[in-house]
Amino acid sequence: MDGAGKLLGLGVGPGDPELLTIKAARLLRGAPVVAWFARSGRTGHARRIADDYLAPDIEELRFTYPFTTEIPKRSAAYREAMKAFYDEAAARLSATLDDGRDVALLCEGDPLFYGSFMYMHDRLAARYETEIVPGVTAMAACWSRAGAPMTRGDDCLSVLAGTLDEDTLAARLKAADAAVVMKVGRHLGKVRRALDRAGLSERAIYVENGSTPDERIVRLSDMPTDDAPYFSLVLVPSGRATS
Amino acid sequence: MDGAGKLLGLGVGPGDPELLTIKAARLLRGAPVVAWFARSGRTGHARRIADDYLAPDIEELRFTYPFTTEIPKRSAAYREAMKAFYDEAAARLSATLDDGRDVALLCEGDPLFYGSFMYMHDRLAARYETEIVPGVTAMAACWSRAGAPMTRGDDCLSVLAGTLDEDTLAARLKAADAAVVMKVGRHLGKVRRALDRAGLSERAIYVENGSTPDERIVRLSDMPTDDAPYFSLVLVPSGRATS
Repeated sequence: MDGAGKLLGLGVGPGDPELLTIKAARLLRGAPVVAWFARSGRTGHARRIADDYLAPDIEELRFTYPFTTEIPKRSAAYREAMKAFYDEAAARLSATLDDGRDVALLCEGDPLFYGSFMYMHDRLAARYETEIVPGVTAMAACWSRAGAPMTRGDDCLSVLAGTLDEDTLAARLKAADAAVVMKVGRHLGKVRRALDRAGLSERAIYVENGSTPDERIVRLSDMPTDDAPYFSLVLVPSGRATS
Repeated sequence: MDGAGKLLGLGVGPGDPELLTIKAARLLRGAPVVAWFARSGRTGHARRIADDYLAPDIEELRFTYPFTTEIPKRSAAYREAMKAFYDEAAARLSATLDDGRDVALLCEGDPLFYGSFMYMHDRLAARYETEIVPGVTAMAACWSRAGAPMTRGDDCLSVLAGTLDEDTLAARLKAADAAVVMKVGRHLGKVRRALDRAGLSERAIYVENGSTPDERIVRLSDMPTDDAPYFSLVLVPSGRATS
């Protein structure tokens, strides 16, 4: 649209503010408006990471996820609530862009690898100039901190969601050369059982809050509870021998 | 080792020098010695990306891959040649570290996601203080440039090596929600056939030299030849409908 602002999808990386790219930092410093998603009552992880890079007079658009804990995640009601939420966020972004102002939408990790930016991209990218800046993913930060070589030679990496059912997880893990289980949180008990069934428990490393001051990295077998926070994942590095 | 230097494994990202992290740039500027791998007769992709960030009086260690084109990749002779090469590179790093100097080893993309850094890590991480800085991967840069939302909700991402045989590739692609085929290069014809067999050709996007001035992004079905350069990959974004 002529005269409209530009939508910037900026990956802000996994947590450590120094893990932003030089490009994302530059674009953030120049942005007149910043937008971000957060759960109710929280600052928002992406917003916290970006804090050092925002212009002092920046305008902020906060999109607070609706309370959906009482609605089953696979129900039509849940899908409808989320669709209405994303429609409204897109409408607010659209109003700002129509006003001729660029908006930097903050994305934890990388914008197009899970995360809410994609729902804005679906709704807006055809109508507004859009630039996407890739970011360091949480999984890359976690395997770097753990010092775990993940994939060598012809290895395949399987990135799996901990929200899958146990049978699906076990089957996919069994077929993997190396794997990352994302979205572990309250699914840790099930993820452990799936890893056991796939014969991978010995290789599994548990990481919570990777690259932040609250980081914890342990062999999964040394993790005493199944009480894992939202920002946790399990790494299964390549089983291939050193060469 | 007391008094020894520190080994820094620095992800320098996919190609655009602005896609370095702020942390990698800071550590590079302060490094007394930089090391990098390159093929014979080439500058080395990682070295070129890092060029703007090196101290003027930096000492350089170049590790030139041996000529192995005449040796079959799966042979014992090939493995032996590569092992000897990595042993020698590690010995040169070790001599510098023993001398009390830190060494920044440059890694295209991310240090622990494919790439030669892992072979140095295997040999040196137990003996020297080692810090690894994650980087933006080539695949993330490519899907950002292509504007292709890759994984939503419970989607799994399969990262596959184009060097695998056609049957293995086809089977793994068939099981994938979303996929990236790395190391395409001279395997593009085979990768196309495997995508066809998995019913994924329509969704496939071909990217070469992503995030560099020589970038090319096309639907794979619009790519007229099978003549792909070394830095090329194929993206298969999520087939999940927008919500």
